[in-house]
Amino acid sequence: MKNLHIKVFDCTIRDGGLMNNWYFPHETVRQLFIANTRAKVDYMEMGYRASTDLFSPAEYGPWKFCNEEDLKSVVEGIETDVKLSMMVDIGRCHKKDILPRELSVIRTIRIACYVHQADETIEMAHHCLDMGYECFINIMAVSTAEMTVIKDFLYRIEEETTVKGVYVSDTFGSFTIHRVPQLVRLYKDICKSKVIGFHGHNNQQLALANTLLAMNAGAQYLDGTCFGMGRGAGNCPLELLLSQLGRNGYNFEAILPVIERYIEPLMPEFRWGYRIPYALTGITNQHPRSGMSFMNDNDSGYDVFYTSLLNGN
Amino acid sequence: MKNLHIKVFDCTIRDGGLMNNWYFPHETVRQLFIANTRAKVDYMEMGYRASTDLFSPAEYGPWKFCNEEDLKSVVEGIETDVKLSMMVDIGRCHKKDILPRELSVIRTIRIACYVHQADETIEMAHHCLDMGYECFINIMAVSTAEMTVIKDFLYRIEEETTVKGVYVSDTFGSFTIHRVPQLVRLYKDICKSKVIGFHGHNNQQLALANTLLAMNAGAQYLDGTCFGMGRGAGNCPLELLLSQLGRNGYNFEAILPVIERYIEPLMPEFRWGYRIPYALTGITNQHPRSGMSFMNDNDSGYDVFYTSLLNGN
Repeated sequence: MKNLHIKVFDCTIRDGGLMNNWYFPHETVRQLFIANTRAKVDYMEMGYRASTDLFSPAEYGPWKFCNEEDLKSVVEGIETDVKLSMMVDIGRCHKKDILPRELSVIRTIRIACYVHQADETIEMAHHCLDMGYECFINIMAVSTAEMTVIKDFLYRIEEETTVKGVYVSDTFGSFTIHRVPQLVRLYKDICKSKVIGFHGHNNQQLALANTLLAMNAGAQYLDGTCFGMGRGAGNCPLELLLSQLGRNGYNFEAILPVIERYIEPLMPEFRWGYRIPYALTGITNQHPRSGMSFMNDNDSGYDVFYTSLLNGN
Repeated sequence: MKNLHIKVFDCTIRDGGLMNNWYFPHETVRQLFIANTRAKVDYMEMGYRASTDLFSPAEYGPWKFCNEEDLKSVVEGIETDVKLSMMVDIGRCHKKDILPRELSVIRTIRIACYVHQADETIEMAHHCLDMGYECFINIMAVSTAEMTVIKDFLYRIEEETTVKGVYVSDTFGSFTIHRVPQLVRLYKDICKSKVIGFHGHNNQQLALANTLLAMNAGAQYLDGTCFGMGRGAGNCPLELLLSQLGRNGYNFEAILPVIERYIEPLMPEFRWGYRIPYALTGITNQHPRSGMSFMNDNDSGYDVFYTSLLNGN
């Protein structure tokens, strides 16, 4: 039987899309949706909703924009309990891009933002809530933010919004197993009326462990992606998360065929997963972009790259 | 400054050798030894000592046998604080293969055994101790053993031997983050005069987290291998372990050049690391050999393989 307090979010298409520019064929997304339905995954994040006046649809795959026709085409005719979600990045999406909920197949919006975007985030949250969506806020890169600034933002979320929850997000894959429970408890203490989520990255091979430790500390919304597909070192592997949560009613084995047929074959080209350059950006608490650029053009050596990270180059 | 209670064991050559049949060039082993010295790793396991009347040196690389000439050639002339160790597998090595310590560069022997080999293990431990070595016992595959049998063995180790320590070994990569601290505490409770070690495997991407959680529960001897090289899904990555323990005086960056030049280049051929078939043997608590065989000859699909594991085929 399902533990109603725990919810699993599959964000393969959204976070994995950072590696393949969201060029997933419609058939891949549809098959993943069917698999998530069978696995009893609670939410599926279909991608970002980016504004087409800020990003050209000629340069990105469909799941960067999540237009309603694309969404409908992959979910049509499938009976499901999976809630459809999309992510809105502050500064990359206008309020006018958010349709009233009754005109969309989307039920849930996750707003991704940085700590310095509190005003815009709260404004966007009000708009998404007004349009009828369930809403979460995902504050990115908190590992490099001042604690007082994080707390101020959390208090504003608690006091000024009716969003459902807030995510502790390990954007740089830098969190230790000690840090994660501390942060979850901090978020819970401040956002008493919200649920807490956790989104891990695997730079130090701690994404799954940190997700489970976050849950033990009180996080209820847990993110994963098929075979860990995601930027750089990737994410918490959904198959392992579901297997660990199996007693809560998930069927992890239902996603194995999709991984085998549609996701794992993308790995040789897009090369997510554990690599030393990503470990080094995680260890030094930095954005994975320098690791990704080093992976494409290693002209120095790991030790020189590490020194450059320490020196902030 | 070094935390004198924590010791790190590099077992790249021994456990990694399970993938390349111990055919590491002497130069690789020598460079790793130099790197471990710089990184302040406490122990380096040079391989197995297998009997040449049981295994033919024509069919295996030198580090399956660790003969003294090979060992000397890779450590000669290097000043070091790294203690040299080798592993003795019960049933694959005779007592006569263990030289008196003063005739060897080896200082430490780890005895690997199964729970049903208590008599032979204790006899071998007495012999290695008599020959002058520091000695540890590593009971493999405890995840499939009866708890009473494990406890009986631990009581015998405590009462009948003066070995320095006993390892909690996650041979199948099946341990959860809850199980590891339980087992460490059990081993400590019974083997009060011994130190406890932990040896993880990465089938469920928990090798590093489980090693750190073992340490938090009281384990003091921690195993890792460069870039996680080891059978199937591999081991706890030494570079990540040393980085996490950095405050205890380790220089993790000293092993990066060896990983880059000598270890990571072996990966395309020997293919250790996280893969779905190894995740499935870990989840179902089974030896990785069926996963390795499936990796070489996938003629069914992950879901069929999973069903076959559940059915014990």
